[in-house]
Amino acid sequence: MNVLLLHPGAMGSSLGAALVDRGHQVHWVTAGRSEATLQRAHADGLIAAADLTDGLHGADIVLSVCPPEFATDVAAKVTQAGFSGIYLDANAISPDTARRVEELTANAGATMVDGGIIGPPIRDAARNLLYLSGDADGVATASDLFAGTNVETITLDAPVGGASATKMAFAGWTKGSSALLLAVRAMAEAEGVTAGLDHAWQTMLPDLPDQLRRAAIGSAPKAWRFEAEMREIAATFDGVGLPAGFHEAAADVYGRLAGCRDSTDVDPDDVIERLTS
Amino acid sequence: MNVLLLHPGAMGSSLGAALVDRGHQVHWVTAGRSEATLQRAHADGLIAAADLTDGLHGADIVLSVCPPEFATDVAAKVTQAGFSGIYLDANAISPDTARRVEELTANAGATMVDGGIIGPPIRDAARNLLYLSGDADGVATASDLFAGTNVETITLDAPVGGASATKMAFAGWTKGSSALLLAVRAMAEAEGVTAGLDHAWQTMLPDLPDQLRRAAIGSAPKAWRFEAEMREIAATFDGVGLPAGFHEAAADVYGRLAGCRDSTDVDPDDVIERLTS
Repeated sequence: MNVLLLHPGAMGSSLGAALVDRGHQVHWVTAGRSEATLQRAHADGLIAAADLTDGLHGADIVLSVCPPEFATDVAAKVTQAGFSGIYLDANAISPDTARRVEELTANAGATMVDGGIIGPPIRDAARNLLYLSGDADGVATASDLFAGTNVETITLDAPVGGASATKMAFAGWTKGSSALLLAVRAMAEAEGVTAGLDHAWQTMLPDLPDQLRRAAIGSAPKAWRFEAEMREIAATFDGVGLPAGFHEAAADVYGRLAGCRDSTDVDPDDVIERLTS
Repeated sequence: MNVLLLHPGAMGSSLGAALVDRGHQVHWVTAGRSEATLQRAHADGLIAAADLTDGLHGADIVLSVCPPEFATDVAAKVTQAGFSGIYLDANAISPDTARRVEELTANAGATMVDGGIIGPPIRDAARNLLYLSGDADGVATASDLFAGTNVETITLDAPVGGASATKMAFAGWTKGSSALLLAVRAMAEAEGVTAGLDHAWQTMLPDLPDQLRRAAIGSAPKAWRFEAEMREIAATFDGVGLPAGFHEAAADVYGRLAGCRDSTDVDPDDVIERLTS
């Protein structure tokens, strides 16, 4: 198939490389992208297009993989350019945002497929899950696209919004609980009671210090893009009458860690300190 | 020692019974208490006093164990009655609330000891932890009081507020994360994507369904008193410049479950349904 990938970040480019390996043509649009993205896309065998019109030429499917705050804008630009094929939005967005993307694509005559990715970029034999919902033919095509790759596609019996809600619920726990644990520790630091908390954890919850360390190391380098994802989850909770506060607070926590972006040498103590400084 | 226990709820009465077993005289005040409390206190060998003045007569130490929203009021009444001994506040309150209690007691010439209980009532060989901070002599007396019981006292090198902050941090994770997990599941139910979430959990986090079940069964019967505790934790976060939203949201979640009070037959599905109905 002829695929336009918007955009080849860490996750997107890993998907693009896998599709190239399976014989698909994967295009991307260079305009406005960084040198790091250029090099990554080149290394992964993606075909550079100068602009969106070029990139959409002959495309069967557009694969949108971008930070959640750009999902609607990417869809608007693609549909304004007259695309009428299959639009697979695989972003960490609320069901309401997914439905807005569906509206945009429907107006242009394109077919929205809602996708939710759970797991890491599929580098070095890593695997992930891609939940799909929406138009049955579109979903089937999207699922076929990833056949033979390390992406396991799961078709949900649900309209657009279902795959996104699945992602929101999964990440709502994993990233929400990590933010909570980091914040709890920062509170104990600020109150000068880490000795007491350490004693209580050792006595009652001996796995928690290691969980805290993993939360700090795992989250901090990616926190810059978790903030907007947390706000999508907060909106999802609000949309069904549940309190948005958990993930508004998590957005705040990750926002304070944005300076750790792409750090490969995270010091958990430094992460905690950033939360209260 | 001569102890006045305010009040013999599930936790307080278990402490009172242990102190009686060690030969201490433990009084309580019957005015305004329920029949269930009367029976519990009687069974535990506590000595009934008709009113606070009676109860305070000859008391060396007042032990305050009550829902957090009443902690300040209990302290105010005790100090207005002229008590000038040791006042051990063992409630789930913010450090700021603990410091307000300290002000009240200091004005009356009493000695505030800050206590934070972690763990269950000490029935049937169960043990718990009592963190202590504040005046060194007062802390030593409070610690001696529980010698030989199933309460392990831990003296923190911290002023009033330290023991409370330790409790807030510990419960901020345990009760905060349980509320988050219940809310995440409720969101998935409301969005109709429990099948997707179950698949993702089974694949990536196989322990989570059991953790959810335990959160529902463990929290729901006690949720009626968790709401105010969550607001104390939210205030603690706010006091050190961290987001209060995690525990404001948790207070909301537990508030919706107040109807499960003291239920001995909790259905996890019913708990989830209450969150969105």
